[in-house]
Amino acid sequence: MNNATAMPRPTAAGLVEGVLGGDRLLLARAITRVENHEGDAAELLSALYPHTGRGHIIGVTGAPGTGKSTLVTALAQSYRQGGMTVGIVAIDPTSPFTGGALLGDRVRMRALAGDTGVFVRSMATRGSLGGLSKTTGDVVTVLDAAGYDRIIVETVGVGQAEVEIASTAHTTLVVEAPGLGDEVQAIKAGILEIADILVVNKADRPGVDKTLRALEMMLEIENGGARMIRHHGQLLRVETPAALAADWDGENRWKVIVMKTVAADGSGIVELRDRIEAHWRWLEESGEMAIREQLRIANTLENIVRAELNRRILARLPAAGMDRMVAAIRARETDPYAAAGKLLAGM
Amino acid sequence: MNNATAMPRPTAAGLVEGVLGGDRLLLARAITRVENHEGDAAELLSALYPHTGRGHIIGVTGAPGTGKSTLVTALAQSYRQGGMTVGIVAIDPTSPFTGGALLGDRVRMRALAGDTGVFVRSMATRGSLGGLSKTTGDVVTVLDAAGYDRIIVETVGVGQAEVEIASTAHTTLVVEAPGLGDEVQAIKAGILEIADILVVNKADRPGVDKTLRALEMMLEIENGGARMIRHHGQLLRVETPAALAADWDGENRWKVIVMKTVAADGSGIVELRDRIEAHWRWLEESGEMAIREQLRIANTLENIVRAELNRRILARLPAAGMDRMVAAIRARETDPYAAAGKLLAGM
Repeated sequence: MNNATAMPRPTAAGLVEGVLGGDRLLLARAITRVENHEGDAAELLSALYPHTGRGHIIGVTGAPGTGKSTLVTALAQSYRQGGMTVGIVAIDPTSPFTGGALLGDRVRMRALAGDTGVFVRSMATRGSLGGLSKTTGDVVTVLDAAGYDRIIVETVGVGQAEVEIASTAHTTLVVEAPGLGDEVQAIKAGILEIADILVVNKADRPGVDKTLRALEMMLEIENGGARMIRHHGQLLRVETPAALAADWDGENRWKVIVMKTVAADGSGIVELRDRIEAHWRWLEESGEMAIREQLRIANTLENIVRAELNRRILARLPAAGMDRMVAAIRARETDPYAAAGKLLAGM
Repeated sequence: MNNATAMPRPTAAGLVEGVLGGDRLLLARAITRVENHEGDAAELLSALYPHTGRGHIIGVTGAPGTGKSTLVTALAQSYRQGGMTVGIVAIDPTSPFTGGALLGDRVRMRALAGDTGVFVRSMATRGSLGGLSKTTGDVVTVLDAAGYDRIIVETVGVGQAEVEIASTAHTTLVVEAPGLGDEVQAIKAGILEIADILVVNKADRPGVDKTLRALEMMLEIENGGARMIRHHGQLLRVETPAALAADWDGENRWKVIVMKTVAADGSGIVELRDRIEAHWRWLEESGEMAIREQLRIANTLENIVRAELNRRILARLPAAGMDRMVAAIRARETDPYAAAGKLLAGM
């Protein structure tokens, strides 16, 4: 029996003290409690929240095979050399059932093992009760309260929840790579619009110039033409070139540029880190930070309310009544839309 | 001005008549109305529902680059040769912003154009108000009512919602391909457990034997060892080898096997179609169909209730009050968990 399992279950207050005091074991346990939505998770998060708001949250997303994990590792090392601490949340598309593959994918982050200034947490996309977005937000809250200077959230850029998670960071990196297949190209194209910084990783591979040209052409269209302003996938408004002209050359507009890296050998990482830091400063100076923080908080609030209502629905639906209802629908005596209306009438 | 845009907006009753009567234009408009959650969408779906329950719903999922679209096209052609009609819902990871890529990816389905026995609908994963799972289910309801014999739902096997959608079909195909990158391997491993049939597509490529061996080894572990029984990502129970031994050699247990295809030239497609049909018969004969239909209906009901509650929450939250609340959270005067508690107290 090791000490970790022998330790009695800490109270929420004990975990809060541990997280704020820099105890890695208690930090890990706090995150687990939050991930599992245990009874006192809300209490824990409430107590930690006043200590948040200092960390720079960086979202990293991209199609499979673009080398995101390697890039995140290299970025974290670069931050460490600058004396900063780094928390990493890696959202893994694999399931707990096949732990081997998951481990294999994270093997590249082993370069960070043993460094107490880095904390890495892998999460599976499935089995996340209460919603992936909410859970990820909660884990980021814990890492932020724990005092990590930079918090990197890595997701695969496919899937509604996964793309949303990366796009609600302070600074969002979209990672590309040359020479991937057709379907991957389509995925890449689909997430360009959320990028604050575009990264072409594996830039030592053949075809990199073609990838760069294609991206720069797309950016020109976006920067010079109509720009769609979205919030969580919903189109809020379309800014036309005329509307944009006013501030187009102003200092306050962030310019999305394409950067080249070879994460595996560290090429371009310092420049990328500098650009991320420049974006952070721009957020503060331009007033954009206030807007992003408001969106982040509104989003967090919505996620919490939604998760709690989902829990209440499930608790309130009488299992026996549900079974009867499902049987009636199966027999086509009623339909799910009418049945849902009846269920909702009492709420 | 063409006739389609000049046509007056059909009533829900008019759309129902059109869908049931085989009018493709009205079918397309009914699907659009359902996708956009227009006011009378629930009325429309309620009226169509009694006409559903005949179509065989086939989920096709897999990592990017495994050739799912080509496989779906080949399968549809094979069904057509057998005299059956086919509806296809392709969930596309790209956004409306970059329509070009989306089109590019679906170009392979052009082989089906002009055949009135096939209906193809592409949907974007983002911007799906009310949830991707619910919307997909609604579109399947419309196609089922329209009388399509086989309804194929294609999703990329990454992302919580996307994997769930494929797994709630009657028969789920997980598509693999040899020689993809590390991250894609991890994604592949993560979705194996939802497969009723495993397909190794692009089986003319180097490395196919390695892929086959790896999959068969995994199947042996799953079939011979503990088997995790899940429903929508939640682990329901783990069946141990002892618990499985009873029916392991029984006729009523479905055996997941690995099949090889080269969708681009049609190799293995007839065999795959036969195996899908065998699964459909097994569902009926084993009694498993009743269980799957119950899960499907319970899931549909939950999705509808959830979407409606989300709508109500958004409608009820007073925008002004929200803004004040978000400002208070930003100033760390309160926290999102406490604020959510207050919002929920009145619901």
